[in-house]
Amino acid sequence: MSIVLGDNRYGKAETRLVHVDRGGQRHRISDLTVTTTLAGELDATHLHGDNTGVLPTDTQRNTVYAFARDGVGEPEDFALRLARHFVDSQPTIHLSRVSIESHRWDELDGGDGRSFTRGAGARTATATYDGGKAWVVSGVSGLTVLNTTGSQFGGFVRDRYTTLAETTERILATAVTASWRHGSAEPTDWSASHERAVRGMLDAFARTPSLSLQQTLYAMGRRVLEHGPELVEVRLVLPNKHHFLVDLQPFGLDNPDAVYYAADRPYGLIEGTVLREDAPPAGAAWW
Amino acid sequence: MSIVLGDNRYGKAETRLVHVDRGGQRHRISDLTVTTTLAGELDATHLHGDNTGVLPTDTQRNTVYAFARDGVGEPEDFALRLARHFVDSQPTIHLSRVSIESHRWDELDGGDGRSFTRGAGARTATATYDGGKAWVVSGVSGLTVLNTTGSQFGGFVRDRYTTLAETTERILATAVTASWRHGSAEPTDWSASHERAVRGMLDAFARTPSLSLQQTLYAMGRRVLEHGPELVEVRLVLPNKHHFLVDLQPFGLDNPDAVYYAADRPYGLIEGTVLREDAPPAGAAWW
Amino acid sequence: MSIVLGDNRYGKAETRLVHVDRGGQRHRISDLTVTTTLAGELDATHLHGDNTGVLPTDTQRNTVYAFARDGVGEPEDFALRLARHFVDSQPTIHLSRVSIESHRWDELDGGDGRSFTRGAGARTATATYDGGKAWVVSGVSGLTVLNTTGSQFGGFVRDRYTTLAETTERILATAVTASWRHGSAEPTDWSASHERAVRGMLDAFARTPSLSLQQTLYAMGRRVLEHGPELVEVRLVLPNKHHFLVDLQPFGLDNPDAVYYAADRPYGLIEGTVLREDAPPAGAAWW
Amino acid sequence: MSIVLGDNRYGKAETRLVHVDRGGQRHRISDLTVTTTLAGELDATHLHGDNTGVLPTDTQRNTVYAFARDGVGEPEDFALRLARHFVDSQPTIHLSRVSIESHRWDELDGGDGRSFTRGAGARTATATYDGGKAWVVSGVSGLTVLNTTGSQFGGFVRDRYTTLAETTERILATAVTASWRHGSAEPTDWSASHERAVRGMLDAFARTPSLSLQQTLYAMGRRVLEHGPELVEVRLVLPNKHHFLVDLQPFGLDNPDAVYYAADRPYGLIEGTVLREDAPPAGAAWW
Repeated sequence: MSIVLGDNRYGKAETRLVHVDRGGQRHRISDLTVTTTLAGELDATHLHGDNTGVLPTDTQRNTVYAFARDGVGEPEDFALRLARHFVDSQPTIHLSRVSIESHRWDELDGGDGRSFTRGAGARTATATYDGGKAWVVSGVSGLTVLNTTGSQFGGFVRDRYTTLAETTERILATAVTASWRHGSAEPTDWSASHERAVRGMLDAFARTPSLSLQQTLYAMGRRVLEHGPELVEVRLVLPNKHHFLVDLQPFGLDNPDAVYYAADRPYGLIEGTVLREDAPPAGAAWW
Repeated sequence: MSIVLGDNRYGKAETRLVHVDRGGQRHRISDLTVTTTLAGELDATHLHGDNTGVLPTDTQRNTVYAFARDGVGEPEDFALRLARHFVDSQPTIHLSRVSIESHRWDELDGGDGRSFTRGAGARTATATYDGGKAWVVSGVSGLTVLNTTGSQFGGFVRDRYTTLAETTERILATAVTASWRHGSAEPTDWSASHERAVRGMLDAFARTPSLSLQQTLYAMGRRVLEHGPELVEVRLVLPNKHHFLVDLQPFGLDNPDAVYYAADRPYGLIEGTVLREDAPPAGAAWW
Repeated sequence: MSIVLGDNRYGKAETRLVHVDRGGQRHRISDLTVTTTLAGELDATHLHGDNTGVLPTDTQRNTVYAFARDGVGEPEDFALRLARHFVDSQPTIHLSRVSIESHRWDELDGGDGRSFTRGAGARTATATYDGGKAWVVSGVSGLTVLNTTGSQFGGFVRDRYTTLAETTERILATAVTASWRHGSAEPTDWSASHERAVRGMLDAFARTPSLSLQQTLYAMGRRVLEHGPELVEVRLVLPNKHHFLVDLQPFGLDNPDAVYYAADRPYGLIEGTVLREDAPPAGAAWW
Repeated sequence: MSIVLGDNRYGKAETRLVHVDRGGQRHRISDLTVTTTLAGELDATHLHGDNTGVLPTDTQRNTVYAFARDGVGEPEDFALRLARHFVDSQPTIHLSRVSIESHRWDELDGGDGRSFTRGAGARTATATYDGGKAWVVSGVSGLTVLNTTGSQFGGFVRDRYTTLAETTERILATAVTASWRHGSAEPTDWSASHERAVRGMLDAFARTPSLSLQQTLYAMGRRVLEHGPELVEVRLVLPNKHHFLVDLQPFGLDNPDAVYYAADRPYGLIEGTVLREDAPPAGAAWW
């Protein structure tokens, strides 16, 4: 009845890095939350507290800051530089993941490119590296969207516990967490790729006549791939942020699809993957 | 040694109301979090559990929804309608406050005015009413802004516990909570007023060469009043979201005002009021 | 139309201090979140960015840490020491407030007094000082309590918008934020006082047959004063954490006060003060 | 270049259920947050919006409430009942997971078993079912613990970016998220099993002289298995909640391991698995 160590990993979570590029007429901010995760020959520290193979998480944070000295660039490139560094420089580390949330800042009007306001949502980028191969996943988080019309829900299973009425008109709202895997980790114009993916995804959200949030999810993922030949797989997590029509009849009023209660909990949670049939295996991309 | 009841109030906090105006070619969303607060002859319920003077908080929520039936309009007007209703309809209620956070939704490109994305920050409006007089306070919350240059901090007191170096160049970042009192509760173009106030405030943030966050605060409040003859007092709460230059010397690198650590806690907290010398007394405006 | 500076203050919010007292057989942890706030002659920094009267918030944080060197002791005493220091040492500072949240740690069984687990809720202490007089307010935050029986709600106002049914049996649940003002800032056994206040308050919560949350609030405040002759005023903020009976009839089931939906928002919010008739004026106690 | 639907699932997240058992002299509360997740033949809804195979998430919530009518019992049993129901009653659903957080309530002294205070942390239980086999995972979340002594960190890799000093005495603090897989889903005394696991895990935390948090993690996982012959695998997620000694030298003070700054971000994050060598395959246990 032997007890053994199984899968394990460690790293530094949520290093808050802001880089200001003052080179141009207009300054540029990179506001990143960086999480590094490493795995490899780590049995000794678990079993005996022997840390000879452990690169401290404090060092990982330092490395994030040091690597930002000459500019962060695209989050995907920054993640790749860091991910490769940890494995290539440390014999005991065989796999690394660097996940970045890039927070959005928009220029303030009249701020001469030196004043900014923080926007909603974040662009995300994750690089994973195993010493030979690298994987890049890009995405968004916290992007909340809503359609006031064009969404129905009906024709579903009814059992003893079903009370939901079918509806041909409902508000559809969700906070999008989406990520898409690139077919290659070779340098490319990551920003242009990101912009195409987001624009396509939101266009699909806005324009898909929706019979279910699942149908919308699939349309969003599909559109990302259609507009991004460099992409091979999309994963979406869509909470269904319910908006319930309020019953105003007790007050002698009708409610012509006008007044809603926006609920916090519980919420539907729809998760799905859309991919190319010939997508290469995901490998460690989503590790 | 008699024990007595002192000040008291009650209400319904954070009613989540979404109203969709489908009347035009482009739909309009009002996404509000509404808090109602009432005070008056409430001794009986506190002392004996006699609720004959208590309008239930459940009813307050219902009222919020019912009043939205024919449209919400400007948050200030909606707050005023509700605040007046509670006092005017309830003999035991002598003072009411209705506070509204109006969450921002922007139209999605290509969404034909039926698809929206949620923005950062909120517009706020509070109406207070005592049966005779009404007060209106408008404002913003969660508006995070940052200047990459133009901010210094020096010449301050040094004592035994002071280690802070003076700086002639720092990042200035804050999450603005601001509210401004209107001189009158008479109907007006609240949106235009709000837009002028926010634009002036942000312009002052962006363009004030800052020797302290206090100086920036005062400039922001002053500008709101200068651009808003209808306004008489501004209150600002500005957390100083510190960005510390990272010391890269241990890694053999300089740091030419480029790489920062964005700290969560602790943070500076600067609060101040700017008002007209001849401002009428605040009365219950900030109750 | 002159514009002027009104009330203002500044400080360092949420300094996270942990002190370990290793002097005894069993270690003792003080885990504090400290917020310091100062006011005084601060016009110059607001109007001209002249900081000669400004003790930096960075220094305030340093002072918190330095003062902890020889032990924190009771949070009330620590708050008083700091509040007095800022005003007494700085000619420009005329009023100071130090607010402390003391987070609860319980000894782990078998941990030999060196292992702890963090409990729910916090003990709070605030000292205010104006150069002559000091005020002390103690309290709790985040203390969530629930009665499964003994709570009714009926006999309330009914208007056009009232749909709430009267109930003779409901769950009463709230997250208590309470603070009580001491009659004197002279050193005393603050912990014993705190324990009496909390025990009395919770006993009143548990044993008061409740016809409204207001009645429970008053009973809680009254009991604090009855058991604390050293206390003169109590302020309570009680969110009514609604638990709604779920209608199980659609599933052919009754619901004999057994199955509830615990709602997040909206929630009732009951606020009240209980005080001695002969309480000295509050002065700057709640500044 | 065909695009296809990949893995997908859906459900109702965070249904808030409170059940009160009034049968005995002392009442018993079950305060649960329940998340249900289903998968199966769901292509039609994704591809065409054909919902004939979709059991609405609204129905899933109703089912949670209906199943609580006759008591919740142990969270593991409740999760199993629900997980089995969804697959066994729905031809299109082939896999289900029910995850439960059970929030802790302790009796208030003097409350006669009808008054409670909410404690910190939660007990967790997850059941997964594929129509034939069921898996049960139990655990805890939000259990924050701290050792004031007995923790070192040294002997680690040093590279160009390492500045961390070795230490032979540090505070070790973490917020434990742990889960352990049962070898069988057969009914058992889940509470007794849970208590043994938690007690063993905390005892290992308190008593393991720690050379790294990884070593502590392994000891915690191992102890759970040693004290729980019914368990086969443990997964732990341990954020390293850093406490940094404050440098008091600028103030002319030493700091004899007494005054610490408790940091929020970044934090170390240590994740690991401990299992029996002959553990059966995890199957869908952690799906």
